Amino acid sequence: MFSGIRATARQERLVATQDKFVFDFTEGNKDLKDLLGGKGANLAEMTNLGLPVPPGFTITTEACKVYLETGSEPASLRDEVSAHLAALEKTMGKKLGAASDPLLVSVRSGAKFSMPGMMDTVLNIGLSDASVKGLVKQSGNERFAWDSYRRLVQMFGKTVLGVEGELFEEALEEVKRAKGTVNDLDLDAADLKGLVKTFKKIVKDHAGRDFPQDPREQLDLAVHAVFDSWNSDRAKLYRRQERIPHDLATAVNVCSMVFGNLGEDSGTGVAFTRDPASGHQGVYGDYLSNAQGEDVVAGIRNALPLAELEQLDKKSYDELMTIMQTLENHYRDLCDIEFTIERGKLWMLQTRVGKRTAAAAFRIAVQLVDQGLIDLDEALHRVNGAQLAQLMFPRFDENTKAEKIGRGIAASPGAAVGKAVFDSYTAVKWSRSGEKVILVRRETNPDDLDGMIAAQGILTSRGGKTSHAAVVARGMGKTCVCGAEELEVDTKKRRFTTADGRVIEEGDLISIDGSTGKVYLGEVPVVPSPVVEYFEGTLHAGADEEGGLVKAVHRIIAHADSARRLRVRANADNAEDASRARRYGAQGIGLCRTEHMFLGEERRKEVERLILADNDADREAALSVLLPLQKTDFVELFTAMDGLPVTVRLLDPPLHEFLPDITELSVRVALAEARKDPNENDLRLLQAVHRLHEQNPMLGLRGVRLGLVIPGLFAMQVRAIAEAAAERKLAGGDPRAEIMIPLVGTVQELEIVRDEAEKVLAEVSAKTGVDLKIALGTMIELPRAAVTAGQIAEAAEFFSFGTNDLTQTVWGFSRDDVEASFFTAYLEKGIFGVSPFETIDRDGVGALVRNAAIEGRKTRPDLKLGVCGEHGGDPDSVHFFHEVGLDYVSCSPFRIPVARLEAGRAAIETAGSDSR
Amino acid sequence: MFSGIRATARQERLVATQDKFVFDFTEGNKDLKDLLGGKGANLAEMTNLGLPVPPGFTITTEACKVYLETGSEPASLRDEVSAHLAALEKTMGKKLGAASDPLLVSVRSGAKFSMPGMMDTVLNIGLSDASVKGLVKQSGNERFAWDSYRRLVQMFGKTVLGVEGELFEEALEEVKRAKGTVNDLDLDAADLKGLVKTFKKIVKDHAGRDFPQDPREQLDLAVHAVFDSWNSDRAKLYRRQERIPHDLATAVNVCSMVFGNLGEDSGTGVAFTRDPASGHQGVYGDYLSNAQGEDVVAGIRNALPLAELEQLDKKSYDELMTIMQTLENHYRDLCDIEFTIERGKLWMLQTRVGKRTAAAAFRIAVQLVDQGLIDLDEALHRVNGAQLAQLMFPRFDENTKAEKIGRGIAASPGAAVGKAVFDSYTAVKWSRSGEKVILVRRETNPDDLDGMIAAQGILTSRGGKTSHAAVVARGMGKTCVCGAEELEVDTKKRRFTTADGRVIEEGDLISIDGSTGKVYLGEVPVVPSPVVEYFEGTLHAGADEEGGLVKAVHRIIAHADSARRLRVRANADNAEDASRARRYGAQGIGLCRTEHMFLGEERRKEVERLILADNDADREAALSVLLPLQKTDFVELFTAMDGLPVTVRLLDPPLHEFLPDITELSVRVALAEARKDPNENDLRLLQAVHRLHEQNPMLGLRGVRLGLVIPGLFAMQVRAIAEAAAERKLAGGDPRAEIMIPLVGTVQELEIVRDEAEKVLAEVSAKTGVDLKIALGTMIELPRAAVTAGQIAEAAEFFSFGTNDLTQTVWGFSRDDVEASFFTAYLEKGIFGVSPFETIDRDGVGALVRNAAIEGRKTRPDLKLGVCGEHGGDPDSVHFFHEVGLDYVSCSPFRIPVARLEAGRAAIETAGSDSR
Repeated sequence: MFSGIRATARQERLVATQDKFVFDFTEGNKDLKDLLGGKGANLAEMTNLGLPVPPGFTITTEACKVYLETGSEPASLRDEVSAHLAALEKTMGKKLGAASDPLLVSVRSGAKFSMPGMMDTVLNIGLSDASVKGLVKQSGNERFAWDSYRRLVQMFGKTVLGVEGELFEEALEEVKRAKGTVNDLDLDAADLKGLVKTFKKIVKDHAGRDFPQDPREQLDLAVHAVFDSWNSDRAKLYRRQERIPHDLATAVNVCSMVFGNLGEDSGTGVAFTRDPASGHQGVYGDYLSNAQGEDVVAGIRNALPLAELEQLDKKSYDELMTIMQTLENHYRDLCDIEFTIERGKLWMLQTRVGKRTAAAAFRIAVQLVDQGLIDLDEALHRVNGAQLAQLMFPRFDENTKAEKIGRGIAASPGAAVGKAVFDSYTAVKWSRSGEKVILVRRETNPDDLDGMIAAQGILTSRGGKTSHAAVVARGMGKTCVCGAEELEVDTKKRRFTTADGRVIEEGDLISIDGSTGKVYLGEVPVVPSPVVEYFEGTLHAGADEEGGLVKAVHRIIAHADSARRLRVRANADNAEDASRARRYGAQGIGLCRTEHMFLGEERRKEVERLILADNDADREAALSVLLPLQKTDFVELFTAMDGLPVTVRLLDPPLHEFLPDITELSVRVALAEARKDPNENDLRLLQAVHRLHEQNPMLGLRGVRLGLVIPGLFAMQVRAIAEAAAERKLAGGDPRAEIMIPLVGTVQELEIVRDEAEKVLAEVSAKTGVDLKIALGTMIELPRAAVTAGQIAEAAEFFSFGTNDLTQTVWGFSRDDVEASFFTAYLEKGIFGVSPFETIDRDGVGALVRNAAIEGRKTRPDLKLGVCGEHGGDPDSVHFFHEVGLDYVSCSPFRIPVARLEAGRAAIETAGSDSR
Repeated sequence: MFSGIRATARQERLVATQDKFVFDFTEGNKDLKDLLGGKGANLAEMTNLGLPVPPGFTITTEACKVYLETGSEPASLRDEVSAHLAALEKTMGKKLGAASDPLLVSVRSGAKFSMPGMMDTVLNIGLSDASVKGLVKQSGNERFAWDSYRRLVQMFGKTVLGVEGELFEEALEEVKRAKGTVNDLDLDAADLKGLVKTFKKIVKDHAGRDFPQDPREQLDLAVHAVFDSWNSDRAKLYRRQERIPHDLATAVNVCSMVFGNLGEDSGTGVAFTRDPASGHQGVYGDYLSNAQGEDVVAGIRNALPLAELEQLDKKSYDELMTIMQTLENHYRDLCDIEFTIERGKLWMLQTRVGKRTAAAAFRIAVQLVDQGLIDLDEALHRVNGAQLAQLMFPRFDENTKAEKIGRGIAASPGAAVGKAVFDSYTAVKWSRSGEKVILVRRETNPDDLDGMIAAQGILTSRGGKTSHAAVVARGMGKTCVCGAEELEVDTKKRRFTTADGRVIEEGDLISIDGSTGKVYLGEVPVVPSPVVEYFEGTLHAGADEEGGLVKAVHRIIAHADSARRLRVRANADNAEDASRARRYGAQGIGLCRTEHMFLGEERRKEVERLILADNDADREAALSVLLPLQKTDFVELFTAMDGLPVTVRLLDPPLHEFLPDITELSVRVALAEARKDPNENDLRLLQAVHRLHEQNPMLGLRGVRLGLVIPGLFAMQVRAIAEAAAERKLAGGDPRAEIMIPLVGTVQELEIVRDEAEKVLAEVSAKTGVDLKIALGTMIELPRAAVTAGQIAEAAEFFSFGTNDLTQTVWGFSRDDVEASFFTAYLEKGIFGVSPFETIDRDGVGALVRNAAIEGRKTRPDLKLGVCGEHGGDPDSVHFFHEVGLDYVSCSPFRIPVARLEAGRAAIETAGSDSR
């Protein structure tokens, strides 16, 4: 049942192994990403579309796997490469590295998933002391030829032979310094020729070998270097973090070189088939004439807007426009493109389905439906819940006049405004006196927890998405910008300095945008999300001018609703939350916690009496005061949710949560005693606190255990629910209560509570004359409950998976403790790709959920199954819950649209073919 | 995989259902306990041996099952009973309840397992207003006849018709009072006749029906009452506590009556075929003339030693002796017997294999081997680890002159001596000043925990084996006598009073025996266990005069050793414990905790430095001081365990355990501040304590997480182990270290630590020139590790199941917290039969262990599997570990003999047939 994914992958791999290790671009297609990598598959696709792709071939991931496992290439690879190279040479009419008119090629890695940390590219392979002269002749441009050779030695030395890159940089700087310039372009052919000599010496000195003059040796070494880079530390770490299997391996693309730096009639650019920010159609991209791709990245000169290419080279521009249309129609999606123009001839170097903003994703999907390119299923597939969630956060007004003073990593979304404070103590103090504060630190650690809780948002100058600040803030759902490195934070002087020397002191107002990473001075007005206004029904007519975003969201969610099998309920504890949940589309309440019904001035007193009671009379007196109060709560709730199911969970948290903190109280008592002024009530309380104190309250007297140990507690709650339901029914309402027993580990517990509850229900039924059909079920939130679900289902009409607690016990860590103490390290080391509290851990927690669903339904085929942990609103987790056949997910009201969307996506993806 | 036991049982039951529901005693045999119950099967066996059993028949458990499921007997049952009854009447030459010379029968329940809470017996069925006269005539004894009728109405009224028993008792008392006597025997026939009338009226008034005069109706109602009693609350509770399946059902035995109260030539008795206390052969039992079985229980007169029967009735005595020999030879075991002599004719009413003391069990088993009745396998099967464990506790000298002042329930074994104290505070105070104390309470609650820890033993006057005191004491392994009800405990006056009015004050010395429940005044000398002396090698020659007990233990354990597949290792942390473990037969160390290596004056300082370090230099400095100290520890350990495997667990507990308690320190700091006398070091410590404080340390930063978060910690430990092993090898030793990583939840954690450890091992190997083969493995102590064991086995050479922690997380309760707070209620309600910390929970924790063993070995067939939780020394759990195919169990040195014995038993029981 729990057989590992790894073993399976290994078997598949063995089956997939085949004899052909090299594919010409004319042989592949876009669906062969597993074998050819993403880049190779798309180059092949464009080739087959008749687009102008420089000819070349791809060495498969299978070849890489053999290399990585055995330490050498497959026996047949050398001959295969020779054959494809010969064909390429024939096509191009040139020979690789020939002295007269050399064919040059690029070697690029290309895995199934784009992956930083792997070797990227070696250009100009084929150049040597001999062939560089041929290139001079062929190009008629001596400077170009020597610059190309210089680049080859540098790239090859660094990425293939492992020479420290800075050595080349320094040598280059040295030459520029000598020449009195800072610009590469000021170096002439002689300078570059000298540099080649210097670079070759660097290679010899540091790699212990000469730069290879044999072009085929260059090619082979570059291919092996790409293979090897699959297992670089950075690549492995990235894969661990992103949960990319280690055994996919990378393909290698060998492509004939074209040059954008051969003069003013040459150039290079990137383009999008529509605006990736807004989704609007039009011409979007950049063009840099007389340049190669790496120059664009280096930012030596400013690129031109793509539209201006029309003036420079109308033929190429028109051809590009046609190709972009072809690609969009073919891929039926926004594509991004890299191209080069070599002396007026357009070449396509790469294409892929392009990244886009959340708003653009919704707009484009609906536009493509309207254009008839895709259907609504596909449109739904193209957007996701994370994008929808982004659209539901309030944002800062983009027209703000507030000054942008920095930018960091968008670590936890939201828009927060407050006074800058520089330590936890001040954050707590100021926030207690009603101030809104932003906690600013170099980086945070567990000492800062209280301050993080008190603050509106957190800003740090160090650390990435997995830093302590980022991880903890996401866990809290608190806005966070981290790693704003241009800000100099001085916590001792209580201030920070911006890149341009501006000083922000403690108490100055700042605004941080957790969705963009931007930091502003002063208060930036916050704009509510139109998507939220739409759900809340507060969007005024005509407000959706942002290109029909709300309309697009509406249309796609409506389709998701019609497609999904999973129902979506809300976690809501009171009538107000319940009403909001209905507005967001909740089809019931999956979790109504009853803890709050034991809080509040009057009730807390009774709860204290209940806890301190040492006889039945006191206990019953306390319970009888609580009963009518709680009944009223339930009447309100059932009224708000009339006609929809409401799952009420009986009291769950440990009792000491209703008493003062042991350390605080101990200090108070000790100080009072030191003052010779002891307080009788405090002493009595302290005794109770001691009695109830637990080393590990999460693993203590809580949930069903409370119900079994405190006589009458659960019965009181059941009676309040039953009486409320009866009252609503008598008033003509349609209350649909379900009672849920928390923290059950064994069917015996459930049987005992069930007997007690049924007795109470029968009594209330008899007394009120109302036929009460209230289902009794349990949470599955302990590993034992999941393992023995077949037994537990004998006494439960429904299961609701409490995946928060289940995650805690399956992994053996409590969320409160570990996010602060070691999750940062775990995310950095790639032990988790994502916190298991955020997305369900399929192999561990998920395996138990699956088992419980199967075994539970074996015992009781009509067992209703749901989930009410926070995973119920997490996109990836919703798909999992669909797969294992749950009936519903329940999540916070705000996450309901996300859950509806993802439930729809899960349904169409399960129904759809695998080729998608 | 986790399919419930219940479903399986249900299927088997359906298959077993058959058409024959009644078996004559001549038709059954002792192996049909499932169908006929224990009593019925043994009656049939005796009948077939030709022994004088009153004729009768058994209604099967299958009939009962049908009755319980459908609410009425199987259709054919009535006719079957009629046929068997007719046959019985023919045999006896009488008709049931016939007016002239009535046949009377008894109706007794008899399930597979003896079970209190079920209806026991109705005697004299067949008597009525009419037939009582026949009995007068037949017996020639009017008083006897009316007394028999009186008894029937009373028993029938109470157990069949559900009339409150006290009503009959009171009426009987009333008559005796009127007559001025306290003895039933003083009532004459007329009194009894009057009582029958009174009793019938009580029945009529309280059962709402007449006492049935139709003998067949009496029989049928009694049979149904037995059936119904299977589901009485007490019976259900007992089954829950003892883990007896609810669907076994009970059989009913209908047996012709014989009477031991027909005069001086009649009588009744119980006998054992040998001494159940010592195991010695001889005549053991009691006999009461002119009495029925229930009179023996009521203790109206003192019974005679059985030997005296020879004088009273030599013929019956001789016959009984012959029968006892026959039974022992036939059952090949000690039997206990109930018999009745009716006017000189001996009848056997019951036999079964008899209970015996632990010492007797070993002696008898070996004696039977010597007699050639059983083989050594069977002898091994007949004893168990719980008995062996009992024999290993020190006992009080039985020849003590100390006064026995009370007796309670033997709740937790051991012999404890100390001064009586009556509250937790005094217990702690006195014990700190070096006094040994016994905590005496009416009952204990969580407030008493500290006192229980401080005391030598606990004595309570209330509560049974599942009371708080009993449960917690067993958990602590502390001596406890509970429920000594004759002692009056007055905690306010700090004293208790014995049944005879003796007052024991605070500070008086008392002794309590947790194995017998006896309480003594004064100090009773403690006698060491000869079995322990045998293992320790300190038993002096000729000391084993107690009937060769040590010899018997030796012989059986030696056989267990030759039979078992499981190896037995010890949990031992230092050389001294390791040496002791070897003496007890350990085949290695399965768990060496390394926590203690971080304790002690000098080391603690370094650990504090390590924890407070905020830079690498401080951290490394601390680790470099610890390294040589820990290396020395390991050298000593490997020397003591030379040639045997030693599994070392890297540091596991949360760091704050090495720092002061947060509440204590907070109070100290607050008081110091109040005194204006702050302590700089305390403040700094408090900050660290706050930073490391965890809500749920059990679920926090510990185990492998420490190793991943604190640079160099695990590497230091691995280096100490490796250097120690290298040193031992260079010195000619044979160190066999294994390194175990605790609290792993996912293979990634293990991979990272493994890489680090392998690097260190290689370094030490290179430096010392010693080839170090040190296996790296992990504990499986989190549900996630068990669920993903197939993945984890890729990086682990062995698994050791940490079933303590696994039990905590699978059930979601921590041992420290819950034994005190709700285990008592859980045991009382039968939610547990036994604490899952004592015996492994097969359905929950066990299912995960089984899964992990299977999946782990799928990945790595030679994976070594062991267990190092406390379950490794628990008899029932050892059987489970054998079943799931572990290689070894590891337990505390003292439990090793128990584990060896049970591992042997498990092996022969698995190998043996099911008929045993």
